[in-house]
Amino acid sequence: MEGVHFTLPPAEPRLIGRKALAVNLSDIAAMAGTPLAATVSVALPSSRGNAFAREVHAGLEELASAFGVSIAGGDTNIWDGPFVISITLIGEPGEQGPITRSGAQPGDWLMTTGHFGGSIHGHHLTFLPRVNEARKLCEAVSLHAMIDVSDGLAADLHHILEESKAGALLYEGAIPISEAALEAASGKPSLEHALSDGEDFELLFAVASEDGRALLANPPFEAMLSHIGEVVSGPGCQIVDSRGNRRELPAAGWQHRFEG
Amino acid sequence: MEGVHFTLPPAEPRLIGRKALAVNLSDIAAMAGTPLAATVSVALPSSRGNAFAREVHAGLEELASAFGVSIAGGDTNIWDGPFVISITLIGEPGEQGPITRSGAQPGDWLMTTGHFGGSIHGHHLTFLPRVNEARKLCEAVSLHAMIDVSDGLAADLHHILEESKAGALLYEGAIPISEAALEAASGKPSLEHALSDGEDFELLFAVASEDGRALLANPPFEAMLSHIGEVVSGPGCQIVDSRGNRRELPAAGWQHRFEG
Repeated sequence: MEGVHFTLPPAEPRLIGRKALAVNLSDIAAMAGTPLAATVSVALPSSRGNAFAREVHAGLEELASAFGVSIAGGDTNIWDGPFVISITLIGEPGEQGPITRSGAQPGDWLMTTGHFGGSIHGHHLTFLPRVNEARKLCEAVSLHAMIDVSDGLAADLHHILEESKAGALLYEGAIPISEAALEAASGKPSLEHALSDGEDFELLFAVASEDGRALLANPPFEAMLSHIGEVVSGPGCQIVDSRGNRRELPAAGWQHRFEG
Repeated sequence: MEGVHFTLPPAEPRLIGRKALAVNLSDIAAMAGTPLAATVSVALPSSRGNAFAREVHAGLEELASAFGVSIAGGDTNIWDGPFVISITLIGEPGEQGPITRSGAQPGDWLMTTGHFGGSIHGHHLTFLPRVNEARKLCEAVSLHAMIDVSDGLAADLHHILEESKAGALLYEGAIPISEAALEAASGKPSLEHALSDGEDFELLFAVASEDGRALLANPPFEAMLSHIGEVVSGPGCQIVDSRGNRRELPAAGWQHRFEG
């Protein structure tokens, strides 16, 4: 929704079209599924004309082609309001069935792809959804739980922990921090960006420790793999620093709220 | 889209939710398919609050239950803009496969369910999509072409004729005119309402003449069945009155256009 999820400018219509599909692909990746077909509905601002619609479509089509997705239908509407785009993406599960958030077990390793934080500086518009990485993980190991990090690493970890009825211990020094977060002159520690910014669209997953070791020894893809912590039986989530000091890590993600 | 497809008030959120699904069900009916599952995405105005969202959902759920449709997912968003709702409805084709607009043949009967015109006076919010009627037609006869009438009887007939590369002759006296069109004090003839108002969400279909006769002799459902004309080989569409006078019937439906 223009004015909520993006502003035009500075966002370009091509990148907004691309992102609208990319976030859906990331949702399919989170379950280690294979995307097949998308329907795309748009409310196009009449003042922006055909060129705008063509740019949005080009951005969609670029990513759809890259992932073998058919744009199979949808609804094209024109109004005097802001630009709105809604996508339904159909996929099929992999051999392990849909990977959910609920199967993390005490003793599991918590692992991630890629780096975290500062996505707002560009990554959120240009990221490649981790569809192929998820499929390769699914072929290599038994995935106990997985999620794509959209709300923030801490918030999405809490989603896994709530569904799995478990706790976690994160290793502060092991969190892969993005260059954008390291370079952000926000006054906030870069670790805080990595834990709470969101829109990283990386995978966070839980596997048995021996599977985690096997992945690190023989990574099935080029994207960075990190072992950032472990699942524990108690509730809640703690983060431990290099001196062994532990502190609570609250969920701190984006919340949708009604007024009043 | 609020302000384009409906205005709140006078439209009620429950009926808007209902209609958003109903028009999708009507699209599935047009191909004689069976609806299975829907995804529903909404941009909810923050000022309207939870009660509004619950009303929309109640309207959706009522019709979903009636047609055995699962509301399987979607996206709930809140903003300061107007209400927008987008639905993707998944269905499966019947035994004849998806019925398209392209199979009408010269000599076919053109037939309809229900009555036409004046839908704006209420029918467009409360109509029952012809899913069951389409399925029964599909079981009873070979459907050469079918469409649901949303743009208007004349406009949607033209859609069939263009796709089928054929023409048509309509019998003026056989067009079933709704009470709302007969009672409309618009100054326009009620026949014109029936031919051009749109949003009737009735079925218009082409079948072999012997199948048409069989349907009239032994109607497979309670909804009114009418034989309104025939498919001819020439291009264009004519309408003939009781004295045998013919005139051209142009398409005159709703067009989506960009400014400038």
